[in-house]
Amino acid sequence: MKAFAALILAVAAAGASAPAAAQFAKAEDAVEYRQGALFVMGQHFGRIGAMVNGKAPFDAKAAQENAEVVASLAKLPWAAFGPGTEGGKAKPAVWKESAKFKEGAEKFEAEAVKLVAATKTGNLDQIKTAFGATANTCKACHDDFRSK
Amino acid sequence: MKAFAALILAVAAAGASAPAAAQFAKAEDAVEYRQGALFVMGQHFGRIGAMVNGKAPFDAKAAQENAEVVASLAKLPWAAFGPGTEGGKAKPAVWKESAKFKEGAEKFEAEAVKLVAATKTGNLDQIKTAFGATANTCKACHDDFRSK
Repeated sequence: MKAFAALILAVAAAGASAPAAAQFAKAEDAVEYRQGALFVMGQHFGRIGAMVNGKAPFDAKAAQENAEVVASLAKLPWAAFGPGTEGGKAKPAVWKESAKFKEGAEKFEAEAVKLVAATKTGNLDQIKTAFGATANTCKACHDDFRSK
Repeated sequence: MKAFAALILAVAAAGASAPAAAQFAKAEDAVEYRQGALFVMGQHFGRIGAMVNGKAPFDAKAAQENAEVVASLAKLPWAAFGPGTEGGKAKPAVWKESAKFKEGAEKFEAEAVKLVAATKTGNLDQIKTAFGATANTCKACHDDFRSK
């Protein structure tokens, strides 16, 4: 119990001393957070990709559930690229061209919402189109902002 | 473009050859997925903890947003503890006492839903109570199933 209470207090103390925009106790936490959110998102996105590419049977309900996880997680990573959190696979361009980075993130969020709508139709062709459009926003940011 | 297409195809191919329960291409992916989901969840939970412990100013809207992320992510990690994914910080008990593990996960999910409801009241005392109950379910599982 003590260790757990200490953990909560440590998180709390860090939160108290940091500015509102920097909600992470350490830069490493921000890196782990954004990598975690992006990885989980990528797994769910890939499951839709498997259906779209005919490598897994089409399951409209599963497609929708996966798209909802993607759209929900799509909002999270960007707050973890704050000042002083350089590192991980992120290129310096994330901080040097922050307006472009933000725009790319917003495009992706918008396409993820459209992907959810497409999965709700249950029409695989519509899902394919929305998946492709979303994948292009992933790729655009990865090309510019993520190290190989 | 090629590398990205190859990635999607690799994920898809892995999905096709795996049983429905094992949605990960490799055991390492399952470990990274569950650690990522739990870490992101922990960060949002900790932000509510900071308010509950008076270490950060109480912000009812932020508390609700954080609780919603926790409740949404609370459903995800457990499917990534499938057979053959032993490792990371998970104790062998996860697989040996899987019914108990599943029960613990479900208790946590239920408390996270109650935490969202509590944040919607905007009443800090109710949030404190619900936060404590949720934290106890975190602790119960960590004690039994996570290595120190």
